[in-house]
Amino acid sequence: MARVVVDVMLKPEILDPQGQAVANALPRLGVTDVSSVRIGRRIEIEFAGEADLERAREIADKLLANPVIEDFTIHSVNGVPAEVA
Amino acid sequence: MARVVVDVMLKPEILDPQGQAVANALPRLGVTDVSSVRIGRRIEIEFAGEADLERAREIADKLLANPVIEDFTIHSVNGVPAEVA
Repeated sequence: MARVVVDVMLKPEILDPQGQAVANALPRLGVTDVSSVRIGRRIEIEFAGEADLERAREIADKLLANPVIEDFTIHSVNGVPAEVA
Repeated sequence: MARVVVDVMLKPEILDPQGQAVANALPRLGVTDVSSVRIGRRIEIEFAGEADLERAREIADKLLANPVIEDFTIHSVNGVPAEVA
């Protein structure tokens, strides 16, 4: 069993209303030193055998991310980021 | 500017229909060696000054995660995981 994590975030130039809503709520909690909040998805893929980063990249590209508005990063767990797409 | 990342995932005992749907779609892509897919959220919090993990934990606890069904992990970027809640 090996785990690969895919982090999908909106591209920096795309507005993130959900993150904005959280950022706007922070002063009510007394938090004033946060300049921005962005919300994306974290997908954990468990492989039955070896972690296959190439395969994970293909899955992310076809099923998990919308390349028009999102970027994704893939890394195996307990490892350093392996790839940015 | 310092970035803190909060990863929010459903607790292992909670069903994840969204991840299941992705897992069920994989054989159609020719992928047969994935045993499970879980989908959660990744939140990037930018602090204007120093990264404040305690503050981030408070934000995660009050605004970002539902402690009944979700677990979260906090880490500053370029660092190792700092805390599991």
